[in-house]
Amino acid sequence: MNDNMQIQLAGTPEGIPQEDDFAVVEAARPEAAQGQVLCETHYLSLDPYMRSQIAGRHMSGSVKPGDLLRGEAVSRVLQSRHPDFAPGDTVRCFAGWQQYSVHEASELHRVSADIEPVSYALSVLGMPGLTAYAGLIWQAQPRAGDVVVIPAAIGGVGATAGQLAKVHGCRVIGIAGSDEKCAYAVEELGYDACINRRRENIAGRLDALCPQGIDIFFDLVGGAMLQTASERLAQGARVILCGLMAEYNSASRGGGPPPGLWIRARATVYGLVVYDFEPRRDEFIAACLPYVRDGRLKMREDIATGLAAAPAAFCRLMRGENMGKAVVKVKLD
Amino acid sequence: MNDNMQIQLAGTPEGIPQEDDFAVVEAARPEAAQGQVLCETHYLSLDPYMRSQIAGRHMSGSVKPGDLLRGEAVSRVLQSRHPDFAPGDTVRCFAGWQQYSVHEASELHRVSADIEPVSYALSVLGMPGLTAYAGLIWQAQPRAGDVVVIPAAIGGVGATAGQLAKVHGCRVIGIAGSDEKCAYAVEELGYDACINRRRENIAGRLDALCPQGIDIFFDLVGGAMLQTASERLAQGARVILCGLMAEYNSASRGGGPPPGLWIRARATVYGLVVYDFEPRRDEFIAACLPYVRDGRLKMREDIATGLAAAPAAFCRLMRGENMGKAVVKVKLD
Repeated sequence: MNDNMQIQLAGTPEGIPQEDDFAVVEAARPEAAQGQVLCETHYLSLDPYMRSQIAGRHMSGSVKPGDLLRGEAVSRVLQSRHPDFAPGDTVRCFAGWQQYSVHEASELHRVSADIEPVSYALSVLGMPGLTAYAGLIWQAQPRAGDVVVIPAAIGGVGATAGQLAKVHGCRVIGIAGSDEKCAYAVEELGYDACINRRRENIAGRLDALCPQGIDIFFDLVGGAMLQTASERLAQGARVILCGLMAEYNSASRGGGPPPGLWIRARATVYGLVVYDFEPRRDEFIAACLPYVRDGRLKMREDIATGLAAAPAAFCRLMRGENMGKAVVKVKLD
Repeated sequence: MNDNMQIQLAGTPEGIPQEDDFAVVEAARPEAAQGQVLCETHYLSLDPYMRSQIAGRHMSGSVKPGDLLRGEAVSRVLQSRHPDFAPGDTVRCFAGWQQYSVHEASELHRVSADIEPVSYALSVLGMPGLTAYAGLIWQAQPRAGDVVVIPAAIGGVGATAGQLAKVHGCRVIGIAGSDEKCAYAVEELGYDACINRRRENIAGRLDALCPQGIDIFFDLVGGAMLQTASERLAQGARVILCGLMAEYNSASRGGGPPPGLWIRARATVYGLVVYDFEPRRDEFIAACLPYVRDGRLKMREDIATGLAAAPAAFCRLMRGENMGKAVVKVKLD
């Protein structure tokens, strides 16, 4: 029965992906073998790292033309041939861009009923949130009064990091790609200021906003932004190297800032890979659930409806046009 | 009385300094005002950072044509107009390249009689040693079995770091500029291997010597070496950014390695400025004195005789021709 809609990569894009780089395919619904579990995708997460998989440069592996796009999802168990799971269970899994997926039981993670709405398991209480928490709290260890700068201020990682920094008494400066995003960052997420990177002089604005320098730079973009921030670090600064969005759509990889900038600031620079912090996910959720409940931590979701809308939504994400965490609602009511 | 020989900068060198970039000058012997101390220079330390002062790029300030060259020395008190010091006391001070210097008492640091020979207060038990200790022990925190790579393997900082890494049970790979230096590193300092950077393919040799990657890279040179090492880091690696010798003789500053290399390795990168660790100098000396006494920590000194020999010795240091820590014996017996 060919009722499993999939999105495959049609061609390898140069630069920003276009919708015709993706193909909608009707595939067979997979079957669960003994010990396996059949899941139905409810929400699919769209994340910048996927561009890096398409470029063949991501540590998790490559996606080539003809391959199913990968991605994490919140799914519901339809059929279980493993004693740990039963139909109706809500789980996280790397379902990919498709309606049905089969997994070994060890690849599934139960989603706590505390997580509400359930799509938050893909954003503020999911991998982006864990990324933000690991980088900001466990690595950078913010102190009250620290000046924290966050590019991609309202994306899944950035919005969580920015709000967590406010919870810890920091002054938080965001950088985002439109006036609408900047207004949202300040008015809804509580940023002290937000710089429109397309319209404003980032260096000049940072000089004005951070006259004592930057204590924590949570880097999600790399490239010129990392250099600009590194030139303005306060002594004892922490830099979290977490994403390279500026490079994801380019064929070549740029160098980094001159190391002398980091020596001068006595900076500590952390390479962050969220997978390393999986063993501490429960600790992160326990810490952040209260903030979600009392409203100090919220997440605007940019929800596309229907799996067929995923390519357009991903292209919008790559153009920086999403407002909040990009999610596809795959299972329609 | 013009009996105070000084070395001044004669012109700003491009590239590697030449002897005629320096001028030997007879100046007046300074006098100690009330509260000050007159010192006679015994040993003057020559260090790579001085090139950076000449280029006007060092955080401690610039040295311009006509200026006295700066530098740390072990001196003896000749005359004291401060109750804390008496003639005959042995002190460390930033005397500069001259025979006599005057200081506020607060600028002098008594040299413990435990430090023997006294010139070790400028190398293994002095600023280079403190630099090595701070970077390797306090920042990188070596574990037994770690693979440690040290460029400039037999200089003041490198030799101390390499021997300390051996004390802590690490495998230590040096990089140096001649077969003679490499032989010295292995045979005398206990390095497990040493790569001749002028004759060997550094990348290929590192691949062969560190098949599991580099756990600690103690960077003293920057440039291509930092990139080559960063491409070969083990997961959880620590990189100490401490010196930029590769750039000291060039007019421009290069960029750093692509940050993706550090993300992939989950590296922690530390900017190191030794001045920050001055408050812990006694702790460092207490830890290292026993190693010096039992022979696990030694320092070959490349001693030039007489202040007039300092320019040639510094030029040799800049060409990488020194064998061990460069020191000038200023006070002749």
